[in-house]
Amino acid sequence: MESSVIELRFALDTFYFLMSGVLVMWMAAGFAMLEAGLVRSKNTTEILTKNIALYAIACTMYLLIGYNIMYVDNVEGGFLPSFGALIGTQAEGADHSLESDFFFQVVFVATAMSIVSGAVAERMKLWAFLAFTVVLTGVIYPIEGYWTWGGGFLSAAGFSDFAGSGIVHMAGAAAALAAVLLLGARKGKYGKNGEVYPIPGSNMPLATLGTFILWMGWFGFNGGSQLLVSDVENSTAVGQIFVNTNAAAAAGAIAALLVTKITWGKADLTMVLNGALAGLVAITADPLSPSPLFSVLVGALGGALVVFSIVAFDKVKIDDPVGAISVHGVCGLFGLLVVPFSNSEATFGTQLYGAAVIFGFVFVASAIVWAVLKATMGIRVGEEEEMNGMDMHDCGVDAYPEFVTVRPN
Amino acid sequence: MESSVIELRFALDTFYFLMSGVLVMWMAAGFAMLEAGLVRSKNTTEILTKNIALYAIACTMYLLIGYNIMYVDNVEGGFLPSFGALIGTQAEGADHSLESDFFFQVVFVATAMSIVSGAVAERMKLWAFLAFTVVLTGVIYPIEGYWTWGGGFLSAAGFSDFAGSGIVHMAGAAAALAAVLLLGARKGKYGKNGEVYPIPGSNMPLATLGTFILWMGWFGFNGGSQLLVSDVENSTAVGQIFVNTNAAAAAGAIAALLVTKITWGKADLTMVLNGALAGLVAITADPLSPSPLFSVLVGALGGALVVFSIVAFDKVKIDDPVGAISVHGVCGLFGLLVVPFSNSEATFGTQLYGAAVIFGFVFVASAIVWAVLKATMGIRVGEEEEMNGMDMHDCGVDAYPEFVTVRPN
Amino acid sequence: MESSVIELRFALDTFYFLMSGVLVMWMAAGFAMLEAGLVRSKNTTEILTKNIALYAIACTMYLLIGYNIMYVDNVEGGFLPSFGALIGTQAEGADHSLESDFFFQVVFVATAMSIVSGAVAERMKLWAFLAFTVVLTGVIYPIEGYWTWGGGFLSAAGFSDFAGSGIVHMAGAAAALAAVLLLGARKGKYGKNGEVYPIPGSNMPLATLGTFILWMGWFGFNGGSQLLVSDVENSTAVGQIFVNTNAAAAAGAIAALLVTKITWGKADLTMVLNGALAGLVAITADPLSPSPLFSVLVGALGGALVVFSIVAFDKVKIDDPVGAISVHGVCGLFGLLVVPFSNSEATFGTQLYGAAVIFGFVFVASAIVWAVLKATMGIRVGEEEEMNGMDMHDCGVDAYPEFVTVRPN
Repeated sequence: MESSVIELRFALDTFYFLMSGVLVMWMAAGFAMLEAGLVRSKNTTEILTKNIALYAIACTMYLLIGYNIMYVDNVEGGFLPSFGALIGTQAEGADHSLESDFFFQVVFVATAMSIVSGAVAERMKLWAFLAFTVVLTGVIYPIEGYWTWGGGFLSAAGFSDFAGSGIVHMAGAAAALAAVLLLGARKGKYGKNGEVYPIPGSNMPLATLGTFILWMGWFGFNGGSQLLVSDVENSTAVGQIFVNTNAAAAAGAIAALLVTKITWGKADLTMVLNGALAGLVAITADPLSPSPLFSVLVGALGGALVVFSIVAFDKVKIDDPVGAISVHGVCGLFGLLVVPFSNSEATFGTQLYGAAVIFGFVFVASAIVWAVLKATMGIRVGEEEEMNGMDMHDCGVDAYPEFVTVRPN
Repeated sequence: MESSVIELRFALDTFYFLMSGVLVMWMAAGFAMLEAGLVRSKNTTEILTKNIALYAIACTMYLLIGYNIMYVDNVEGGFLPSFGALIGTQAEGADHSLESDFFFQVVFVATAMSIVSGAVAERMKLWAFLAFTVVLTGVIYPIEGYWTWGGGFLSAAGFSDFAGSGIVHMAGAAAALAAVLLLGARKGKYGKNGEVYPIPGSNMPLATLGTFILWMGWFGFNGGSQLLVSDVENSTAVGQIFVNTNAAAAAGAIAALLVTKITWGKADLTMVLNGALAGLVAITADPLSPSPLFSVLVGALGGALVVFSIVAFDKVKIDDPVGAISVHGVCGLFGLLVVPFSNSEATFGTQLYGAAVIFGFVFVASAIVWAVLKATMGIRVGEEEEMNGMDMHDCGVDAYPEFVTVRPN
Repeated sequence: MESSVIELRFALDTFYFLMSGVLVMWMAAGFAMLEAGLVRSKNTTEILTKNIALYAIACTMYLLIGYNIMYVDNVEGGFLPSFGALIGTQAEGADHSLESDFFFQVVFVATAMSIVSGAVAERMKLWAFLAFTVVLTGVIYPIEGYWTWGGGFLSAAGFSDFAGSGIVHMAGAAAALAAVLLLGARKGKYGKNGEVYPIPGSNMPLATLGTFILWMGWFGFNGGSQLLVSDVENSTAVGQIFVNTNAAAAAGAIAALLVTKITWGKADLTMVLNGALAGLVAITADPLSPSPLFSVLVGALGGALVVFSIVAFDKVKIDDPVGAISVHGVCGLFGLLVVPFSNSEATFGTQLYGAAVIFGFVFVASAIVWAVLKATMGIRVGEEEEMNGMDMHDCGVDAYPEFVTVRPN
């Protein structure tokens, strides 16, 4: 009887992990649709290829070495993880099955990498991107993830990042920023006298669908990060996380809507979408401690912030076609820094320390990899290919072959 | 041990609520895709903006006051709820966490409001729509919902509406009908001599995707409305609900397919989609009591009914671009009235009484709000804007900027 | 207390079945999007209609007679099932509710039939297709399914097909192959001197979305096929299944990507999508026994195999617009034959025997039905209709009525 109850708890917690993982896996489709909607039609097949391939590579690399680096046989409070292959063996007395834990973790890696594909869209070589994916998902992310979630030195220092505003989102943005700096802006994005030319996304329904998918998947992302659900305390916590996550996303969308209406006189749909995502990223650092009302505030600030951030990056000619660096980087940092206001165990200093460490490491490590790729295989497509679209060159298949399009630039 | 089992039940019921809520939340994407597929391309960005904004506003308003009005500190059997803010506190001995209950309820509000956006598409001012959203989701729906689900006078009268054919769907349709009557038809929809000009939706794959999303989400909508799953009786009931819900949707699609084939000689995809949705709406008033075979019948009648209803509304020049009033209003009413055939606790008289009360209240309250909006900010876009499309005027972003389109009207 | 724990197990297993079923139901949307993306725009409404109608018919037929034929009152080890209507009654001491079992099974039937619609796309008459759907989902699949999953003679012979590489996927492909042979290739697909003209799909984002949906839904397809989750052993098994399923899909996508890059010099997105699906189909025969590494191998071989298979079918002028026969038939067979390498209870001989029986029966039975349909109502649209597109003729609604398209052929 007693063992039956213990088994039931194990089963429910495992099942909860798997369902959460499915929702996070679904976010891969969300990023694919969001990015396919926000690039031009001539680069759509290529961004779709990148998205499905990066998910596939992330899952494979994390299985082969990433999970092991991040979680298996590491010392408490350390800086360097132990290296090894595959996912280890089920621990005695574990709360859920090892495989369910792996499945939940593996879909997080893919999320981090998905952030990069949006920022480098429309000019990054497909195979350079995939080569980088191998390194980020197999090595860089696992090392950085170990520091907090694997029990490394950031965890020991008290750094608090519940579901990964920093560890997943800002990390992805750091890798993206390093890429964009080495890659340069798309042709025709910036004029000689500081003009910023808008390059509208080619398919708004896809971008909106992608955002809804991400919003949905985020319930698994944040909700699953409680790790357990099988008693009153944990299930109540998961419920709070769902409510706060939803509240922050909603507030982010509303804030972006109002800011664009007030600033530009129009309701800018892409900004509303990014506002919702910004709210989600911001609350991810701690979706449990705040009250729902405070979550509304966090989300709203995130949603407003992202609008100004996107404009600011364009001012300094950092070209990010989907706003990924603003959504995941700036709002990820914002999320980390706002944790101490609701969670007394976190301090502003430690949050800043953790953010600096993660950003610094991922940015530098990524920059080195990108630089090596640039020096060897090259990371940017030729001018003609960029003009004609990456689909023709890299993929040989047009995304919308029958549709007559007018192609800007 | 015993407390552990009680905790496990609490945990499972909470988790079940949260998963159901995620499925209903996903319906917001379903409505967005359905409506984006059924409007013209020149109005697509605007309808997407409305859909994501209405979901965000609904979630925020229901958090701020709506849930409190509907569920907190109300008298049994009353007409006027108590008013207050936020979601109250966890009750002693509750079956699941308060937050999971709130999360499940909040996504229902959004559904009710999503129904409106489709019916008023292509000519309603964005900001008037959003202003109405604030009132419907914050006040009108919560008051009306209290009457049955919050233990108010309709509940005391024995009115039976398991998952909301009336409370959610017909209520949304009532608000929509009030709007359409004040708003008028789209330019070019009706000729001077009674001609009805079809205005085909611009993107059938999106509309189909939206329908599949809604079908999927409905398992959460109806299945979650059992409220508990953690014992044999309840989990068996949830299983019955899934089967009946699916059977009714399938029968609705088949019925609409056959009716359009027989009547017009063609298989009209949009009618098939609406047929499936009609079956879903019809079974929602009681997806538990009927046998699967009776559910097939209810769904089939709903699916046939919706075809004739859409034609009839066009005859009286009530212009509903997506057929929302027929699907959710007419079939919602049909669903309520068919309950007594399988559920002996419901009577035809009480069902009619409840339907009349809900429809009457929501219609009148909505009409007042729409009239005030019309008199102040205006609810209809100008003729030129309607001609050129709402996207250009309200959103400044085209849904498909690179695609060459031939725009009817 | 003890009964409470038993009830909890029943509840959790039922809930797990229902959630798995929802994921499989969602695969219907995946097939619809995949196929809508891979056909030409002039046939898109028709393929969408087929997809939603086939799901509706499958659900209805399986409720009326299919489930009964497959599972109710059959003899152990038999060849002919008993025939009857509806789903029977809940067994004493069952692990989960009868309805949850039916719901999980019914969505499998739809999957089998979805495979057919892709292969016969762009030239098969809508109503002939729907007539065949009635027979396959009501009779052919249930008989064939009884042989293994219903305890019939293939089960007795030791044939091993965990989640249906053969019973669902190869069976669907067998029905599709019979149809394609009687139907012939699309006009303009093959030249007189053996030329193969590519007919690119009209909407790559839809095809990619469909693949992601199928990938997601497959966690329910394979994960739910463990049938139980409520103790350590079963929940651990479900976790293993999730990991193996994901690993095989990822490896399939990567393999197809590399093969097309090496062979043709380009990353062919449609092949990458088919590669992921091929990996999924291949692992479905046994997603539990292999190690994750072996699952990677199975998926990779499936993903490579599908590329060569698609090319080979084109060589012999078997025209399959979406590659369904290769993905589900060839890789389904491959999956069956690879089981003995990781599962010592399966033998190569028995697997081959089971595969031959299933393929042979479904192919012959389907061919008879197709032949009868061909002789009576006809199965192929007229030349002019094929040229102008099926949407205009069968559905009267264009999929993208406002978009200017250049229509090949």
